[in-house]
Amino acid sequence: MILYEVAGADDRRLSPYCWRVKWALAHKGLAFETAPLAYTQIATVGDGSFTRVPILDTGGEWWIESFDIARRLDAAYPDRPSLMRGESGLSFARFLDGWTESMIHNPTFGMVAADMWGRLQEVDKPYFRRSRESFLGVPLEVAEEGRAERLPAFHEGLAPLATLLAGQPFLGGDGPDYGDYIVASAFRWLAVVSDLNLLPSAGPIPAWLARLAGRCG
Amino acid sequence: MILYEVAGADDRRLSPYCWRVKWALAHKGLAFETAPLAYTQIATVGDGSFTRVPILDTGGEWWIESFDIARRLDAAYPDRPSLMRGESGLSFARFLDGWTESMIHNPTFGMVAADMWGRLQEVDKPYFRRSRESFLGVPLEVAEEGRAERLPAFHEGLAPLATLLAGQPFLGGDGPDYGDYIVASAFRWLAVVSDLNLLPSAGPIPAWLARLAGRCG
Repeated sequence: MILYEVAGADDRRLSPYCWRVKWALAHKGLAFETAPLAYTQIATVGDGSFTRVPILDTGGEWWIESFDIARRLDAAYPDRPSLMRGESGLSFARFLDGWTESMIHNPTFGMVAADMWGRLQEVDKPYFRRSRESFLGVPLEVAEEGRAERLPAFHEGLAPLATLLAGQPFLGGDGPDYGDYIVASAFRWLAVVSDLNLLPSAGPIPAWLARLAGRCG
Repeated sequence: MILYEVAGADDRRLSPYCWRVKWALAHKGLAFETAPLAYTQIATVGDGSFTRVPILDTGGEWWIESFDIARRLDAAYPDRPSLMRGESGLSFARFLDGWTESMIHNPTFGMVAADMWGRLQEVDKPYFRRSRESFLGVPLEVAEEGRAERLPAFHEGLAPLATLLAGQPFLGGDGPDYGDYIVASAFRWLAVVSDLNLLPSAGPIPAWLARLAGRCG
């Protein structure tokens, strides 16, 4: 299998959704290679119809959308450790998908977008600035203003995550599952795109991320 | 079984945690009666050691703490429909417990506390005002100021709930489980203690609450 993912100037892998798929493939024990792309090269993959990563070439089929890829991996490899673990686990993963969007990606994107721009391949910089400034409604450098003052509210919003992880080692319970990878990928993305340390400095969340890094690379 | 719960002047049942237990007992198909109390009568139950509701008299044992009661019901009645449904469901319910605290109870308590005070039994009013004003740090009437202006941020925080319920009928999937009851009990509590309509006026959340009311009373 080959996973196409977006990489920056120094080969940093910039997509949280690709991190989800890499953790999912590792969870299933599947070997894979990664193929780094610039954002502006995505349309060169396959038949040219793809507009986003991840794109997984399974050797005959092209799979897209990280959540769908995880479900297809469970369906294709039912004898390997499950990513979703039944109806309740699927529901929890879906909730965490929305929660991560709402409570991690949305409040932090403006804080790190200018840093992320600085780490792109040169060819991507005009596209990224134009599209993300359109999304944010302000220049990247304005979006990050006052970011240190926004950290306490961001950390406060993480309370349900910290509370759960204070009582059990992984979101999935004794071991990680796809819900863990969804949330952890957002933190991995933040660490890759910016030197601003957005993590709570102590407590259950950094301890959980260290456990995941130890298990899944 | 007898469930002791807090009731207001007009017998309104005022504890979201007791709603959780009532839905849990109904889910298990267990018959029960409720015994209404004033807050200041809780210490008259059992051996006088209890300080909070719910208190469930199972006919020989006293069970407390809503989440623990739900787990004990699953353990005692394993052949009846499960509330937690395995490790993933238990993890999801724990996460929703913290999320409900953080995203429903915390932002709304100040908005409705004065209304709730007005619906208490007279005997409870001094205790409630004293303890809740200590918790809130301001008089109840100050805590509710500007509440209409706080509703949009509250609704925005509900996005992960609305997103999940746009794609499936219950948080548990095709049918409700304890996670549904945790979150729905917070909305039921808000509807009981205040005439302020805090619900989003349309969309998946009110539709889900209507489905739950139809199934579980």
